[in-house]
Amino acid sequence: MFTPEYFMKQALQEAEIAKEKDEVPIGCVIVFKDRIIARGHNLTEQLNDVTAHAEMQAITSAANFLGGKYLKDCTLYVTLEPCVMCAGALTWSQISKVVIGARDENRGFINQNVKLHPKTEIVSGILENECSEIVKNFFKNKR
Amino acid sequence: MFTPEYFMKQALQEAEIAKEKDEVPIGCVIVFKDRIIARGHNLTEQLNDVTAHAEMQAITSAANFLGGKYLKDCTLYVTLEPCVMCAGALTWSQISKVVIGARDENRGFINQNVKLHPKTEIVSGILENECSEIVKNFFKNKR
Repeated sequence: MFTPEYFMKQALQEAEIAKEKDEVPIGCVIVFKDRIIARGHNLTEQLNDVTAHAEMQAITSAANFLGGKYLKDCTLYVTLEPCVMCAGALTWSQISKVVIGARDENRGFINQNVKLHPKTEIVSGILENECSEIVKNFFKNKR
Repeated sequence: MFTPEYFMKQALQEAEIAKEKDEVPIGCVIVFKDRIIARGHNLTEQLNDVTAHAEMQAITSAANFLGGKYLKDCTLYVTLEPCVMCAGALTWSQISKVVIGARDENRGFINQNVKLHPKTEIVSGILENECSEIVKNFFKNKR
């Protein structure tokens, strides 16, 4: 049951909530011992705050749940590749694993040569089509 | 009166507050039309949150003050060169100018080749000694 696809679907549900709020639809969950301990979706417009990315909120929330700032035994599932800001936060958190739905060639951290913590494993391409389509359709409908 | 040194001293006051809380002493202010609209100091230990850097808090606070998420006519004065996370947030904010006290060769964004927004001016070395010493002394006393 607790497959990467299962948790990415949960992240996609968060992206759907963002879409309903007319936010760029990106969502994530943070998992600790097969349990979702934090959820986040993009809220930059609603909060008028460029720092209110899904991942930033989830990192803060997960640390609060765990009672410590390091997420060493946690996995982040995120629908779109994190930006430089979120990658920087993930590095500080020393998170164990980052699972990415769709790549973001322009704004994502990978092409900008930002490195996560040396111990962080990165996996990409889980439910890639769904994660990519929800963002593409959002911008298509904006035009 | 409103020289870069004046505002950097204000950022140093924030760093002093962090030091009193036993946080790594880094502080900043954001200035709009010669007025300080946001202040921040590192709170990562107190809040148990790796995202609670001085700059992140000040960016959120300044956007809240201005009622919009872009800081296009603002200047950040920060005692230590921002990390990759904070640089990413500054890029999203499109801030006009970033004034740095001391460089951070290891953790700072410059040596990690992270670029700010193309329109953001960067100045470095304002009250460099004071800004550097407060961090060095903090870690010296920790040993």
